[in-house]
Order: sequence, then structure tokens, then C-alpha cells
Amino acid sequence: MSAPLDQTALATLFTEARTHNGWQDKPISDGLLEELYQLTRLGPTSANCCPARFVFVRSEEGKRKLEPCLSRGNRDKTMGAPVTVIVAYDSAFYDALPELFPHGDARSWFTSSPALVEETAFRNSSMQAAYLILAARSLGLDTGPMSGFDKDLLDATFFADSAWKSNLLINLGYGDPDKLFDRLPRLSFAKACMLA
Amino acid sequence: MSAPLDQTALATLFTEARTHNGWQDKPISDGLLEELYQLTRLGPTSANCCPARFVFVRSEEGKRKLEPCLSRGNRDKTMGAPVTVIVAYDSAFYDALPELFPHGDARSWFTSSPALVEETAFRNSSMQAAYLILAARSLGLDTGPMSGFDKDLLDATFFADSAWKSNLLINLGYGDPDKLFDRLPRLSFAKACMLA
Repeated sequence: MSAPLDQTALATLFTEARTHNGWQDKPISDGLLEELYQLTRLGPTSANCCPARFVFVRSEEGKRKLEPCLSRGNRDKTMGAPVTVIVAYDSAFYDALPELFPHGDARSWFTSSPALVEETAFRNSSMQAAYLILAARSLGLDTGPMSGFDKDLLDATFFADSAWKSNLLINLGYGDPDKLFDRLPRLSFAKACMLA
Repeated sequence: MSAPLDQTALATLFTEARTHNGWQDKPISDGLLEELYQLTRLGPTSANCCPARFVFVRSEEGKRKLEPCLSRGNRDKTMGAPVTVIVAYDSAFYDALPELFPHGDARSWFTSSPALVEETAFRNSSMQAAYLILAARSLGLDTGPMSGFDKDLLDATFFADSAWKSNLLINLGYGDPDKLFDRLPRLSFAKACMLA
């Protein structure tokens, strides 16, 4: 039996958590990035396929390579973030399945179906992006996820020699509360849910 | 500034949390499902598009409709779960954008591009599935996500008259720890991450 979270923890994760657009001048250590990944990787994926790959962009050179890939509205906030995570997936993720799912030949489910590879990689790396967002909040960090960027240019810039493909970006740091927008509305239970 | 979570909360969400295959005979109230959605819906989506829709299948009739859609390996555990969530997306999610993103004409970004609609709906509803998994754990519930089912049959069975499309399934309840498998390995930081 696991203990439900208290209101303070729910606030950190959900009820008071916000997507940030401005960042304090406060770096993130290598140790904290490692801790972030150690939590993120525990989130469930189908057949434990773990397709997501994470590039933590934080050097001046890395940011300079990233900048032209960003849509105009995402540039300033991204260049100002201590770290921008490129959440990618390995389009040959199935080659790790003998290690990740040792009790069956899961690799063979994928080698004959490029469409299943793409669908599985995209669904599960998106879920892993969400795990990273909530793991970051768990560690007291703030996030700013974005899908407004030139995927082809980013993949050519960062992944020319690999099978990794970008999915989304997540700015990471300690947010500046003065630069928050108002929270936008959400759909009611009646509009988004059904009981069956 | 948000408070980092303590080790007990991290255990509930990540370090001790597990995907469950067997379920205690303990129902989930309507109020708890509402509470689950109220947390889930707060997770960020691009342009606040909130494409996910959730069908909470728990009646005998609902489960009977679901059963033939499931792959063989997912049948017993799903029929034994108090609730199975069909995580779907509304393929016309953009029609809600005037309500969800009132300060711009975000609807028009999508009406001319079916490919962008599909990509955005799939990415963001997958992220919302992950928010639901972690929100459920936050409330002391256990989960068992699955993508092994006949999507066409499920959509024909549950969504014949709507624009909703299934993405994945999540069993929900209080897990039976005796029916857990061993935790599978995960990729090391060195294999899954890069610093740039």
C-alpha cells in the first residue's frame, strides 16, 4: 500500500505547478540532472521499451546550435533557461529490448513493422516527457515544455549521425514567478470524461 | 518556490511504484475518479489543447464490451480491475481552443492541417495518460497501462458516433502486491542521456 500525497506535494506537482516562461539565474548541477533521469526512467512504458532519449542543452555552444531551430515565440525564454531538454526517441529502441525485457523476444515484435516502431516510440517517449516534467517538479524544479520548433533542422543539427529523433523540448530551471501568465481554463469532467 | 517532495512521496510516485497485474476487491468511488481527473487535467499540453478524453469503464456491461478488444495477455488482469480507463483523444480537439486558449486564434493552426492535428492529439494525449498515471499514484491508487488491444474494434465499439479515438488503456485500482513481477531494468544515464 502506498501513501497518498499530502496537499503540499499535490501543490508542487499539480495544483500550484505552472509552466514557466522566465527563469532565475540559478544553475542546475550535473547531480540534479542525474537524479532527474533516475526518477524519470522509472515511469512505465509498454514492454519496458524506454524509447526516450534526453539531451540536456546548457552550454553556450549547445544553446547557439538550438536557437535557429526554435519558433520565434519560444526563443527568448529558451535562451534564458539554464537547461533545455531535447526529449527525443531512439528509432532503433528495440535493439535494447533484449536488455530491457529479457523474458521474451520483444525485439522481433518491432523489426518487421516500421509503423509500430514509430507509433510506440512516439507514444512512449511522450509519456516519458510527462514523467520528466513531474519528476522535475518533484525535485523542486520548474519546467516549460514546447513543441514549437523546426524538427527537421533540430534533428539535422543534433542527430545527424544517430537514430535519435526529436519529439518535444522542455525548458528546465527555477522559474521567475513574475513572468507567469494567468492559468488557462481546463475542460470539465462532463466534457472530457465518460463513465461506462 | 515549490517544495521538493520527500522520500515517501517519491516512493509513492516513482521509486516504489509498480505496474500492477492483480487487483484487490476494492471499488473506486465516483468522487475519487472526479478527483483523479481534476489533478490530471492540470498537466501542461501545447497551447493548452487538452486533447485527451477518458472513459472510465467499470460496469459489467462496459467490461463485457471491452473484453473482445483486448489482446489475450491483457484480458484477465483487465477484467479483474475495478476500473479500466480508455485514454482517448478528441480528433476535433481544436474546436475547444476558443475556450481553452482564448487569447489567440489557435483553432486556425489546426483546421488546415490534419497531420498536425493527429500529431498534436497523439503526443499530448499520451502525455496526459502519463499525468493520469502519476495523479492516480498521488491519490494512493495503482495503475496498469497497456497498449495491447484492437484499436479499430475498440473505436467501433465505444466511439462509433463520436470523433474520439483510443490511444491506450490504463487499469486502475488497488493492486495486489502478491501478483507483481520483478522490476525490469532501465537504461543508464550514459545510454539514454547526453549533455550538450
